[in-house]
Amino acid sequence: MENITSLNSPHIERVKALIGSRGKKNRELENAFIAEGIQAVREALFPKLGEGLAVKRVYVTENGLTKLSEAISKDILAKYEVIQVSDQVMSVMADSESPQGIIALCSTKSLKLKDLWQRKPSKIAFFWQIQDPGNAGTVIRTADACGFDAVVFSSESVDIFNPKTVRATVGSLWHIPVIVDINIEEFITEAKENKFAIYALTGEAEQQFNAEFIDKSKKAPSVWIFGNEARGLPSLTSDPIKVSIPMKGYAESLNVASAAAIVLHSIGLSL
Amino acid sequence: MENITSLNSPHIERVKALIGSRGKKNRELENAFIAEGIQAVREALFPKLGEGLAVKRVYVTENGLTKLSEAISKDILAKYEVIQVSDQVMSVMADSESPQGIIALCSTKSLKLKDLWQRKPSKIAFFWQIQDPGNAGTVIRTADACGFDAVVFSSESVDIFNPKTVRATVGSLWHIPVIVDINIEEFITEAKENKFAIYALTGEAEQQFNAEFIDKSKKAPSVWIFGNEARGLPSLTSDPIKVSIPMKGYAESLNVASAAAIVLHSIGLSL
Repeated sequence: MENITSLNSPHIERVKALIGSRGKKNRELENAFIAEGIQAVREALFPKLGEGLAVKRVYVTENGLTKLSEAISKDILAKYEVIQVSDQVMSVMADSESPQGIIALCSTKSLKLKDLWQRKPSKIAFFWQIQDPGNAGTVIRTADACGFDAVVFSSESVDIFNPKTVRATVGSLWHIPVIVDINIEEFITEAKENKFAIYALTGEAEQQFNAEFIDKSKKAPSVWIFGNEARGLPSLTSDPIKVSIPMKGYAESLNVASAAAIVLHSIGLSL
Repeated sequence: MENITSLNSPHIERVKALIGSRGKKNRELENAFIAEGIQAVREALFPKLGEGLAVKRVYVTENGLTKLSEAISKDILAKYEVIQVSDQVMSVMADSESPQGIIALCSTKSLKLKDLWQRKPSKIAFFWQIQDPGNAGTVIRTADACGFDAVVFSSESVDIFNPKTVRATVGSLWHIPVIVDINIEEFITEAKENKFAIYALTGEAEQQFNAEFIDKSKKAPSVWIFGNEARGLPSLTSDPIKVSIPMKGYAESLNVASAAAIVLHSIGLSL
């Protein structure tokens, strides 16, 4: 096993370039991103999806290698290039403040929309121009936990391969298909052709997201659309069914990841 | 109206001291914190609670003053000390990257536990050692939107008066009583004395958070306890009823703010 102790190693520069201020540009140029920590790397090495987001290389400290060997069988680990680095090298490489000593360099290859329809999904969550990296990661995790079949992000959404988003998914990035950079109108058109009911969450709809509505709408294949954190939904020529989550108190709206948790849980899980 | 244009004004130092790296210490010393943006400051000047978190002073740019004058009546605004600052002074003062030109210096005075019981609350959300400032703000916003009567944070939780948390509440900090620095065991003891049912969310409980359970448990006054992001709940000598949110997919758990959204919505709102 290669062992890096020099702070001048080109590996460090390569990893840092994928998470720093030029991160997004470099991730797009190289089709690569960084996953950090035992949970993310374990799922990356042994993905539940069995496809996409493949690992190109793993960097571990001595401690990190011990943790990884406990979490993943030798046979699986042997398939990957694993490079040991000193604690000092890891602390320079890592994005998080208290690195766990495990980093994977992964491929950003992700599903196309036409691949999605071929998978015969039943419940899809669509996010329009979501901007907060933590929100984006959280909704992927929620969609996974609620048994949704895919998460789709519109064009001009935050880059889901940035370290904050990857971390917020806590491994779910490797559990559920995530499709990015999709035009919302084209998506709705294709979803309708594929016989999906289309619902859009908004603040001021007549249709309330109540028990009766949930019971009725959860039975058929459906798409659930959520808008931008500040601006909500765009005006659409296609005409999704607009739905509001009923509220009490004085709050004008819910955080988008909280609204998604309420809806995805109600629709994805048979309570 | 006073008008500050000098970058050497002591006002700048005072505001920055409440949001920077020494922010938490200074907030505790001065019993003061900073609220930024039109939504937060509007609620601060005209709080739905009608008590606590009082505004000591407002800083506005010319633009900010226009926005504030549209949102708040002259009579209310006249009760407060409003200081106009130049755009440059505001950009140095503000915590957010694109400041809206409105900042309020507020008092951190908050409710005591004994005041809470006197208010005869029915639904209370309790968070043990919540660490992420965004999560803390989001759960306050969610509790408000779901008609809960109070949010309580344990000792060793993140400081709710830090700018990220205040921003994430989107004004709900002034809509719902928030009580901080409470010992969990003492809280449960007092809640039981006040005839509350005590439920604790955890990953591996026998009791599922399903429709039947929700129907039964939402009827009586109740406390809902959520654990730390990484470690979940502590072991407790008191014995709350443990409940798990059912999950599908491969995710091991939900983000605490997402779990809270699911629970608070189901319990606080009659669907």
